[in-house]
Amino acid sequence: MSEALSSQETEELERSLAASDPGHDARVHAPPDPRHLNLPAPRVQPPAALSALFGADPVDRAGHTHGKAFRDVVRNLRGDLSAAPDWVVRPTSETDLADILDWCSQEQVAAIPYGGGSSVVGGTEARFSGPAISIDMELFDQVLEIDRTSRAARIQAGVYGPALEDQLRPHGLTLRHYPQSFAYSTLGGWLATRAGGHFATLYTHIDDLTESMRVVTPQGVSESRRLPGSGAGPSPDRLFLGSEGSLGIITEAWMRLQDRPVYQTTASVLFDSYTEAVAATRAIAQAGLYPTNCRLLDPNEARGSAGMESGGGILVLAFESADHPVDAWIERATEIVSDHGGRVQDRTRRDAAGASSGGAAGAWRSAFLRMPYWRDALAQRSIIAETFETACTWDAFEEFHAAVTTAVQGALNDICGGGTVSCRFTHVYPDGPAPYYGVRAPGRWDGLLAQWDEIKAAVSEAIISAGGTITHHHAVGRDHAPWYAQQRPDLYAAGLQAVKGRLDPAGIMNPGVLGIGMPGK
Amino acid sequence: MSEALSSQETEELERSLAASDPGHDARVHAPPDPRHLNLPAPRVQPPAALSALFGADPVDRAGHTHGKAFRDVVRNLRGDLSAAPDWVVRPTSETDLADILDWCSQEQVAAIPYGGGSSVVGGTEARFSGPAISIDMELFDQVLEIDRTSRAARIQAGVYGPALEDQLRPHGLTLRHYPQSFAYSTLGGWLATRAGGHFATLYTHIDDLTESMRVVTPQGVSESRRLPGSGAGPSPDRLFLGSEGSLGIITEAWMRLQDRPVYQTTASVLFDSYTEAVAATRAIAQAGLYPTNCRLLDPNEARGSAGMESGGGILVLAFESADHPVDAWIERATEIVSDHGGRVQDRTRRDAAGASSGGAAGAWRSAFLRMPYWRDALAQRSIIAETFETACTWDAFEEFHAAVTTAVQGALNDICGGGTVSCRFTHVYPDGPAPYYGVRAPGRWDGLLAQWDEIKAAVSEAIISAGGTITHHHAVGRDHAPWYAQQRPDLYAAGLQAVKGRLDPAGIMNPGVLGIGMPGK
Repeated sequence: MSEALSSQETEELERSLAASDPGHDARVHAPPDPRHLNLPAPRVQPPAALSALFGADPVDRAGHTHGKAFRDVVRNLRGDLSAAPDWVVRPTSETDLADILDWCSQEQVAAIPYGGGSSVVGGTEARFSGPAISIDMELFDQVLEIDRTSRAARIQAGVYGPALEDQLRPHGLTLRHYPQSFAYSTLGGWLATRAGGHFATLYTHIDDLTESMRVVTPQGVSESRRLPGSGAGPSPDRLFLGSEGSLGIITEAWMRLQDRPVYQTTASVLFDSYTEAVAATRAIAQAGLYPTNCRLLDPNEARGSAGMESGGGILVLAFESADHPVDAWIERATEIVSDHGGRVQDRTRRDAAGASSGGAAGAWRSAFLRMPYWRDALAQRSIIAETFETACTWDAFEEFHAAVTTAVQGALNDICGGGTVSCRFTHVYPDGPAPYYGVRAPGRWDGLLAQWDEIKAAVSEAIISAGGTITHHHAVGRDHAPWYAQQRPDLYAAGLQAVKGRLDPAGIMNPGVLGIGMPGK
Repeated sequence: MSEALSSQETEELERSLAASDPGHDARVHAPPDPRHLNLPAPRVQPPAALSALFGADPVDRAGHTHGKAFRDVVRNLRGDLSAAPDWVVRPTSETDLADILDWCSQEQVAAIPYGGGSSVVGGTEARFSGPAISIDMELFDQVLEIDRTSRAARIQAGVYGPALEDQLRPHGLTLRHYPQSFAYSTLGGWLATRAGGHFATLYTHIDDLTESMRVVTPQGVSESRRLPGSGAGPSPDRLFLGSEGSLGIITEAWMRLQDRPVYQTTASVLFDSYTEAVAATRAIAQAGLYPTNCRLLDPNEARGSAGMESGGGILVLAFESADHPVDAWIERATEIVSDHGGRVQDRTRRDAAGASSGGAAGAWRSAFLRMPYWRDALAQRSIIAETFETACTWDAFEEFHAAVTTAVQGALNDICGGGTVSCRFTHVYPDGPAPYYGVRAPGRWDGLLAQWDEIKAAVSEAIISAGGTITHHHAVGRDHAPWYAQQRPDLYAAGLQAVKGRLDPAGIMNPGVLGIGMPGK
């Protein structure tokens, strides 16, 4: 799939913009040539023994400066690379890595672990004073060992999604972890940020797919034992999962795999009332059926992503199995949605891999994967297009959703003179959904970043005061740190800081993520 | 269900002992009268403001000295109460609790959280020098709030299993967490020890049923936000889950509930070959069917617990749902077992709650709940009867099982001149089983404890060297600490110790569990 929009897509975009925002200044702002960026010279020099691993190529440094959020795209377009790392370092082994971290500790150089650089929360950005290196793990790209019997593999952390699946496919196995960033992110990044996969229920979070991990910290290597389950003390892996590089760098993990699915069935369900649609989705989430997809698109989202009109939204349902036909499962699910006034629009069924699903499910999936490219093209035309995500309990959802959408719409009106907000559920749990919001509004080229930052602050305030989480699967990074500080228990933060003090006494590991490790940086 | 054996059961036991161990000295050793124990006087005096909460009744102190392991039963029978707490304290509120912990910190008195006292790993025992109090949480026994929509409840940590279910039943809800200790253990104990429920797959571990927690530490209260899922940093709850009272005392939690099941179907499957039985169990664990029970009893276990003869063991299967009939599920499961040479013996099916299942499933369940009472009666007759449990990956199981059973049988032969070992799977995961072993051997009354400790050490060595976990759901406590020290990553232990230093600077919280917090105790 090509990164850029096709000329046909570009024409479509510009036509649609002219129709939706007739007065908008949609002139295209092309990105600067990265070769003419005049990045400052590195502030530190690598030790001779490691210098072969260090690179200061300006294009490489520029490529390691930002993540993939809207604010990253805008800063790239404006040539703002003030947070560029001094060096990009590519270790080839754990020994290299340990040596690099030793040097960083001695020289007080911040070490930023870099997987695919797809953070949307400033997680890989040197947003602090003082020198920093970006440690790109791309040479750790191998599946080292496969255990077909237990369906697990020992995998290096720097492998990208497609390369990982390529190495598993000959064994009939798959990790089946598909974040939207799949092609541009790595196993290590997923683990460090507690990534959420594409699937709506059960084994979809990277946390639950993890059997054991190896982490290189400034104080040495931590390796947990490969176990299907254990009650021996608090889980060691759960300390590193979500630590966002603040404690060390994950080098490899034993991951739980699945057989490649054979049976699949999907349905799109149309609702007249969003309240009913939410109730239907909740009933399915609580029925013990565990669909692979259970994505409720609200009417705005259904129109924007799947091109379908509905009064109350569309629920995209799918069941899959490598073992058995899933007819009984979808039958019961369609009974449930019918009880809540849902109308099943199209159902597909297959018994062998190959054919892709059509209908709203297919349209939505395609839009899902292409979305970041549309977002980039919109940013070039001064359109704010970004997402944010959270989770809350079912009892709270109606009020929560109203509070959040009111806050967003108010901010869009105040700051941009209008705009739209849409919502879909990416994951559903028996006790609550994970709503994912899309925002689109006409911005001003010279104030695009400040406009978005103001909207984002209003949104984040609303999420935290209404009881949600500041992030369900995008991570905390640096962007979410002020709201994360309100969310996590203070004593837990104190405990985490104590762990960091023990494992990273020099405070070099990704300072600022999770709001910890900033002293002296 | 009465605690003691009936006279008929006692006769049966003695007949069976005479047959199985004809030369054994099976004289009955009655427990001493707890009123004549002559416990030493408390070494510290409570502060006046809190003295109403403190009790030093000898029977009460004796009752809070040990847990419910075989070695606890033996020590109780022998009147060995050297580890009795100085006081039993029953706080009525979090304020009481905070005051108690303040006093403990000031006076260097160890604080041992006490739920139901059903630890089988010395988790509630004052096994150290210096004064100690047992903090019995039994007055924290209420369900405080119910959220029917999200199916969750805010529950105080001191509530026992049956009282908890009694409070949920009027709402049609259940926690459905049934450890063997259900009647004699509390929510707080389950949370602190990462308890495993009766069900074999999916939402059965207390970890996964936890939405949020409140913990009173010596440095204040930590409360996490109620969320169905979150990717905001490492999970705060996962730090306290499994901390075994070493960081603070859990006072309440929001727990995920379920609707009470309506549809149920069970089957017992007989195998001629244990290898085939294991393969069938693995296939089911990997099929995405998620049975509520999937317990493979090996031939010894099938004979001892379910009274059934089999060459290769019996697999007890069950599916349950509150939402839909589960015929499709069990149909596929029986296809899978048939493919592996299993013969379905009896199948039951019900569409409404009420009737209990018969066959091996029913017999086994009854034996499961009565087992601790048989164990106590055996101990009185100098028979060693105990269990231990672990987990490993499927690829490792055959070799692991051989190593463990060889070690146990060797130890039994050396130490007791013989004995039997049996195995069942309590939980199955896609990547491995949780084997649970039962041991029975004729002991000598005057050396019963030393005999068991020697067997247990041999078993634990075998588990750790063969790659298993020292505990899948019994916890670490004090008994497992030496082997836990080999299992957990050293740097993780250092991190946990750093957290403890921050939350419990005086080191008063349950010193010795998890092998941490011993300095000065």
